[in-house]
Amino acid sequence: MNKTIKNHRSIRKYKSKKIDKAILDEILNAATRASTTGNMQVYSIVVTQDEKIKEQLLGAHFNQAMLTQAPVVLTFCADFNRFNKWCNINKAEPGYDNFLSFYTASIDALLAAQNAVIEAEEQGLGICYLGTTTYMAKKIIDILDLPKGVVPVTTLVVGYADETPDLTPRLPLKSVVHFEKYHDFDEDMIKKIYHERENSEETKQLLEENQKETLAQIFTDNRYKKQDNIFFSNEFLKVIEEQGFMNNK
Amino acid sequence: MNKTIKNHRSIRKYKSKKIDKAILDEILNAATRASTTGNMQVYSIVVTQDEKIKEQLLGAHFNQAMLTQAPVVLTFCADFNRFNKWCNINKAEPGYDNFLSFYTASIDALLAAQNAVIEAEEQGLGICYLGTTTYMAKKIIDILDLPKGVVPVTTLVVGYADETPDLTPRLPLKSVVHFEKYHDFDEDMIKKIYHERENSEETKQLLEENQKETLAQIFTDNRYKKQDNIFFSNEFLKVIEEQGFMNNK
Repeated sequence: MNKTIKNHRSIRKYKSKKIDKAILDEILNAATRASTTGNMQVYSIVVTQDEKIKEQLLGAHFNQAMLTQAPVVLTFCADFNRFNKWCNINKAEPGYDNFLSFYTASIDALLAAQNAVIEAEEQGLGICYLGTTTYMAKKIIDILDLPKGVVPVTTLVVGYADETPDLTPRLPLKSVVHFEKYHDFDEDMIKKIYHERENSEETKQLLEENQKETLAQIFTDNRYKKQDNIFFSNEFLKVIEEQGFMNNK
Repeated sequence: MNKTIKNHRSIRKYKSKKIDKAILDEILNAATRASTTGNMQVYSIVVTQDEKIKEQLLGAHFNQAMLTQAPVVLTFCADFNRFNKWCNINKAEPGYDNFLSFYTASIDALLAAQNAVIEAEEQGLGICYLGTTTYMAKKIIDILDLPKGVVPVTTLVVGYADETPDLTPRLPLKSVVHFEKYHDFDEDMIKKIYHERENSEETKQLLEENQKETLAQIFTDNRYKKQDNIFFSNEFLKVIEEQGFMNNK
């Protein structure tokens, strides 16, 4: 397997060392080589290095310290703004103010992001994805002046690692891979798949710290709670509509 | 830049040569090394090699010949089914039947897909993404027996290339990259950005073949039409709801 892919781990502590412009350009150019729908390139990348703007983004991203620690923050956006403008000055009526177009642009943005990750790591840098982007999309739109037709979908912090975490264990391959068609799981299979993770030292420690009976409860009760998911679902849907992607009639 | 990233092109003609199981496993394992939200791995990959099932998928994907030509079809799905089942047998109430969770799972699936692409290309294979996945999600769900909690979001065909296409030109980097904040485009900038593409030999040929005045019209009138986008927006939103991801209250 490609060594960079094999050795990927999320980095949450960064050195203050800056990233050379030449290296940053390589990362950005690598992002643009990813496949994109009909070669429309309906995404954009906002590169934030200014300390004051990073401070503002820090607030949007639940105050995760790595946001200001890492020298570069990349906000990947689904973006039909540029393409729509191009259509409008070329006697072409854009029909991209709908949900499918938003989702198509999201795919473009996310494939570009993963290319950026691999190139950054090949250049000796570390990265971390910030899932808070979709939760706090409205605030990020305000901070980064994103116009209509643009929605932030994920964020990367990039910098030189100041920690060397272990590789994160994954479930056995058969948990995510299905051959020919989907083969649904019965209770026994689920138990087998999760057995190792449930019985790890890390899990035992987590259960004690959180005073929980099962690892699953740590996800449902602490990390990814129903009430939060519902709240942020409505917030994100509102953003998608406000940015002009819900004219589905 | 990483050579594999730099040399990426979509392949639309494939040799009949099969992919060794060891190579396929490397590709699938590489996919699992991508970042995933909270290490929940809320995605799945359906690997289809059976000729009969590929024939069915061919119909779902607008009869693009590469679907049956390429030996392997990978359908990447946003998938909370496995995770929900795990919660349910562990006294934890899953709260992942909402839009945010669907979008989170989509991100997981798409990052995994791009890792699979890079590993496949490193192994000497070619790939092509099929955007038709979201258009025809309902049909794909039926063909691949995808249960509730699972939505197909993109598809890759993978195989040995039987063509050597040129690299696809991209817009200048400044078209997709914004420094610090988003800097919106005026008409002059849009014209500059698209100048080279609009004046290429390929564009001149396209305009003549399609009897159009501008390249933008080929996108709006032929390739990605408003009426189709609206139709497939509603179809895809219906699928997201039917698969159990729209309980946002």
